[in-house]
Amino acid sequence: MNPDNIRIVLVNTSHPGNIGGVARAMKNMGLGRLYLVAPRDYPNEQAVWRAASANDVLDNAIVVPTLNEAIGDCQFVVGTSARERRIPWPLLDARQCAARMAEASGREQVAVLFGREDRGLTNEELKVCNLHLNIPTSGEYSSLNLAMAVQIVAYELRMLSSDNETPVSDAQEWDAPFASRDNMERFYTHLEEALVDIEFLDPAAPRQLMSRLRRLYSRVRLDEMELNILRGILTETQKWVERGKNSER
Amino acid sequence: MNPDNIRIVLVNTSHPGNIGGVARAMKNMGLGRLYLVAPRDYPNEQAVWRAASANDVLDNAIVVPTLNEAIGDCQFVVGTSARERRIPWPLLDARQCAARMAEASGREQVAVLFGREDRGLTNEELKVCNLHLNIPTSGEYSSLNLAMAVQIVAYELRMLSSDNETPVSDAQEWDAPFASRDNMERFYTHLEEALVDIEFLDPAAPRQLMSRLRRLYSRVRLDEMELNILRGILTETQKWVERGKNSER
Repeated sequence: MNPDNIRIVLVNTSHPGNIGGVARAMKNMGLGRLYLVAPRDYPNEQAVWRAASANDVLDNAIVVPTLNEAIGDCQFVVGTSARERRIPWPLLDARQCAARMAEASGREQVAVLFGREDRGLTNEELKVCNLHLNIPTSGEYSSLNLAMAVQIVAYELRMLSSDNETPVSDAQEWDAPFASRDNMERFYTHLEEALVDIEFLDPAAPRQLMSRLRRLYSRVRLDEMELNILRGILTETQKWVERGKNSER
Repeated sequence: MNPDNIRIVLVNTSHPGNIGGVARAMKNMGLGRLYLVAPRDYPNEQAVWRAASANDVLDNAIVVPTLNEAIGDCQFVVGTSARERRIPWPLLDARQCAARMAEASGREQVAVLFGREDRGLTNEELKVCNLHLNIPTSGEYSSLNLAMAVQIVAYELRMLSSDNETPVSDAQEWDAPFASRDNMERFYTHLEEALVDIEFLDPAAPRQLMSRLRRLYSRVRLDEMELNILRGILTETQKWVERGKNSER
């Protein structure tokens, strides 16, 4: 595990005190990289006060206007989520998820996204994630404070760093680097374009098609070579559509 | 485990906001019994504000002047502690300790003590404990916020509670059945055929292409609906190849 490759991304945080609380929770557990996507009220002295001796984490925090700018170079993106979502997605609890993140952080950039205090991450934001993370809570009151949620995830990561046993998975000795978020987005754009070209996707009635395909490919975590193969297939397919259209002229 | 037999005891808390944060952290994890030993500034609206929807926990909190009154009827007392204490004492991390507390709570009254924000529990207070609990932290900044410490212990207890359906995973509660081996083979045959049709795959020099694609799709575990989408795309693509070839005749 390499904590320097793990970033905490807070999306549209309302309360600056929570940002400070997050910074402290991170530093307590040995994490240092904080991204703030369009915070509502920041900088703010409440953040500084709650950060206590973690002001360096706040000082180094990167504020960006969009989620893409926070995670564009990441190969592994985790979104925190309530349990009941409409489209099922690979969902693990914080402990299982921390194991996956720790492992990936050895060779990849990893991001964990935390949503708004009042309504979490949007479905659009959740769809860019490879994995969803759920923190088990009581059914009677399941809404965790934002900084508390970060604390639990950071703690689970910490428990792995002091452990000697490194969790293993099939991803460990992969022969090509995994695709970055930016390249995945380019692929989805290309895919959508090609599906419109072959008239499989009707832009006027797209239904759930692209969501389903996004879910499929984010589940698999494509490596760069696979991405090149798939894009090559799309390009060849589009050439045939051109030829086919010429035949009808 | 019986959460009704577990109480959280805060000793000499300075900041009322932390008391509210503790109440919320407890309720989120299914704990309800809070004892406040000589809090410095309580009741206070900061506590109410930070408790959010856990006001019932605050309302039911028992305020006592001495530690003995908070734990007199307990059979099992755990004290949170930094790692370096002068007096050697049985010391476990939060996870191990939660397991012991959960077990004891089946038949005994269990208390977990959390000390002052600035200097924790005194040696006198630690001596009344059966066990000391330490939360692993980074050596660079080991001082956890009080409510965060309670959150982690409550979370570890939650992870042990039996009514905790662990949300898993890649397979459970998926919205479509996973594809059978036979259907996967039919898909690979169709895929290979289509790649030859669009002249992306040269049957005379196939290289590793199909192996790579097989590896990709077997990694993802396709469900039947996804398989249908992918086969639909292949069929449409093949139609365009037909049209394109006609144009060249």
